[in-house]
Amino acid sequence: MEAAIKQKSLNGIDVNQLFQTINLIKNDPEIAKFKFRAGNRWIDGAHNRATVKGFYGALKEDDTREPVVFEVDEPPVLLGNNLGANPVEYLLVALSGCLTTSLIAHAAARGFQIRGVESSYEGDIDLRGFLGISEEVPVGYQNIRVAFKIDADLSDEQKEELVAMAQKYSPVFNTITKSTPVSVHLNK
Amino acid sequence: MEAAIKQKSLNGIDVNQLFQTINLIKNDPEIAKFKFRAGNRWIDGAHNRATVKGFYGALKEDDTREPVVFEVDEPPVLLGNNLGANPVEYLLVALSGCLTTSLIAHAAARGFQIRGVESSYEGDIDLRGFLGISEEVPVGYQNIRVAFKIDADLSDEQKEELVAMAQKYSPVFNTITKSTPVSVHLNK
Repeated sequence: MEAAIKQKSLNGIDVNQLFQTINLIKNDPEIAKFKFRAGNRWIDGAHNRATVKGFYGALKEDDTREPVVFEVDEPPVLLGNNLGANPVEYLLVALSGCLTTSLIAHAAARGFQIRGVESSYEGDIDLRGFLGISEEVPVGYQNIRVAFKIDADLSDEQKEELVAMAQKYSPVFNTITKSTPVSVHLNK
Repeated sequence: MEAAIKQKSLNGIDVNQLFQTINLIKNDPEIAKFKFRAGNRWIDGAHNRATVKGFYGALKEDDTREPVVFEVDEPPVLLGNNLGANPVEYLLVALSGCLTTSLIAHAAARGFQIRGVESSYEGDIDLRGFLGISEEVPVGYQNIRVAFKIDADLSDEQKEELVAMAQKYSPVFNTITKSTPVSVHLNK
């Protein structure tokens, strides 16, 4: 993000703060280490409730946010009651938010003004994996397709560059496309 | 899930419907092919809005659900205004919902009655990846830790078995821990 135009705000991103943050982190990489968290409580059947509140970052705990609560459920065809989006839909929400923010932030750092960004997400799942009917079928998404539409006075090449940067620098995209270790512990 | 006790409902899961679904899918694997979707629109800065509505599954489009809308933002330290959870937190929400539902459904199929399930999630991210400061640092979560607490009249071994099944059969867990292809296209 070095070669950016220095200006106060672009695409709603405070570019001065962004570059100050980068310089602070270059001097002390500990500032860049974040821990994000969620809690979950099962309600009934396919219905459970997740809560997001505190996190650690920039060398301190931050518990100042109001908790955000998410209902998770399945549609009736998947044994639920439609009380919320389902887990694999939440994954697409996560991916959508991350690619969009990554695109916008890196556009701001490059000095590219953006008027609008829309994107759509579709993933294929074969439920024979989840149901244990076949060991050959992947349990997770077999693949996810994303389409972006960018409204900006930029060439197609510049828009392609932004879409490439969005992928390169998106934490959720990289968590999904590289295999990320998840360790699960039972509290006895 | 073959060796289960056949009864109407366990843990809020209609076990008859679950086994009927498994038998239908064994006769026609096309029934198991689902497509889940989300849309996203950038609002300003780190704030964007995702919408979940229709999906394809059990051989047909389902557009009957009311849309569910999610606000995505960052805290001020990450250039946002706290208008919603951030993308990597949504990923933990997705993982929490999926491991919980996977645990509950497979417990029901095994005939294990569950009184309560709580779980907590924490993931480490080094923002030098997102910011492009270091090419060596992973951009996504470096690792994610999960802890489960299960309230049930089960032995520790049976609870450990449930936690193992939750991981084995959870689509989101497998999407994250195996590398899943994501193709991103620019609409010109």
